[in-house]
Amino acid sequence: MKLGIIGTGLIGGSIALKLKDKNFTHFAYGIDQNEENLNKALELNIIDEKADFRTGIQNSDLIIIAIPVDSARKILSSVLDLINEKQVVMDVGSTKSGIVEAIKNHPNRKRFVAFHPMWGTENSGPDAATSDSFAGKAAVICNRDESDADALELVERVIDTLEMHPIYMNAEAHDVHTAYISHISHITSYALANTVLEKEREEDTIFQLASSGFSSTVRLAKSHPEMWVPIFRQNRDNVLDVLNEHISQLRKFKSALEKENFEYLEELIVNANKIRGILNQ
Amino acid sequence: MKLGIIGTGLIGGSIALKLKDKNFTHFAYGIDQNEENLNKALELNIIDEKADFRTGIQNSDLIIIAIPVDSARKILSSVLDLINEKQVVMDVGSTKSGIVEAIKNHPNRKRFVAFHPMWGTENSGPDAATSDSFAGKAAVICNRDESDADALELVERVIDTLEMHPIYMNAEAHDVHTAYISHISHITSYALANTVLEKEREEDTIFQLASSGFSSTVRLAKSHPEMWVPIFRQNRDNVLDVLNEHISQLRKFKSALEKENFEYLEELIVNANKIRGILNQ
Repeated sequence: MKLGIIGTGLIGGSIALKLKDKNFTHFAYGIDQNEENLNKALELNIIDEKADFRTGIQNSDLIIIAIPVDSARKILSSVLDLINEKQVVMDVGSTKSGIVEAIKNHPNRKRFVAFHPMWGTENSGPDAATSDSFAGKAAVICNRDESDADALELVERVIDTLEMHPIYMNAEAHDVHTAYISHISHITSYALANTVLEKEREEDTIFQLASSGFSSTVRLAKSHPEMWVPIFRQNRDNVLDVLNEHISQLRKFKSALEKENFEYLEELIVNANKIRGILNQ
Repeated sequence: MKLGIIGTGLIGGSIALKLKDKNFTHFAYGIDQNEENLNKALELNIIDEKADFRTGIQNSDLIIIAIPVDSARKILSSVLDLINEKQVVMDVGSTKSGIVEAIKNHPNRKRFVAFHPMWGTENSGPDAATSDSFAGKAAVICNRDESDADALELVERVIDTLEMHPIYMNAEAHDVHTAYISHISHITSYALANTVLEKEREEDTIFQLASSGFSSTVRLAKSHPEMWVPIFRQNRDNVLDVLNEHISQLRKFKSALEKENFEYLEELIVNANKIRGILNQ
């Protein structure tokens, strides 16, 4: 089994490392416009050979597209153009409706499996890749009926090898849920960072006082725009919907404080505490 | 050196455990209205003896008040009433102006040191206490000039034993900074939890899809109202100020999305990314 990794960064690199560790594959081609990432990935044994687009794809049994969602959507069609009826293509993107829509009429559509591993960090690049990243996390497969059974089965073996558990949903539902569970967290965190940077002019004080709580809430604000602008663009409507709700939830806190209505403030907090029961199921 | 711990929960318990581990003290009285916490603290060797308010205070060299900030402010005066000129009292509260103001004319004011360790978790109670909680974190001392030199020195030895580094500031500045660095993070996290709970009715989906990013951003939303309502009440003006700024920062994201102005969205994210350089100094 030969892999073709398009995008040798955090996610592509972490998948390759794990699949090699577990002997799922012994050889990975790396395809990346970023020559520096490609060399780094080679040095770190994430990939075994740098390849051009056509060679890498045509020689791989499984092609994993792990680049920002807008680029993935753009190139997927060209990738499918190059493969035969035995090869399988999967992506790892955080938005799904757009990419599925883009290739719905492609003759090789059924060789593609729309995949999204629910893991990531605020870091990027092959340096950040680790083989123990995914264990225990959810792996979403979207629109399974639109993929060939053998393609689906291969991706399910990948999921199993990554020690993830598969969840199946359609692309629209996926994009709604990830707006709630993932995308809004990033906006909140970015906005929190900007709030503190705007109001707290003493950078040394931020650094010195930053508690673990602050660091944890603001961690995602380190995430790169190259990845996140395309996600917000593709999932704009859902994200806007959740963002409006979030602003209105914050206004409740504001109102409770302004009116010194501390019973209401307590109610809001008690309600938020319910997340403990849900996350610790 | 005998300790008197008023409030045998997460913070009081963690301090006692560490000070015992490092042989700073060999005996701690526990004072707590919550009999269950008190028994648990005894069982876990956080304290050595349960004591009533008067006995516990009068027999301790150092009294540590580790209860919610409104209760701490209420009882501090009674604590100071009971001590002699050798004993020292410190608190651990997340707001400082109120407590310092409340006892500014007390004849034993100079035996009190206003202290705030920049560490906590979303958990509470003696069960959550650990001896390795504070290392490497900042320990704020407020209004040092209002404390006796020997009292200040004792608390500095506590800070050193906890492996924290001291930072000195006045109570007003402390409350402004913690509104930015800590209090707003909690409101953001509570509001995010409420957003998701409001919009995402499928609890199983939250649980299954929750990525590490979401869990990290929403972690603080598990924090208890018993601790946090008093903090928001005491630091209301500063928190409101930062909350207004935070809402206006979120509106910028909203506007960028509504107008599909993705260059502006990128600018907002690039600015937020600056937090990486500050936190990783």
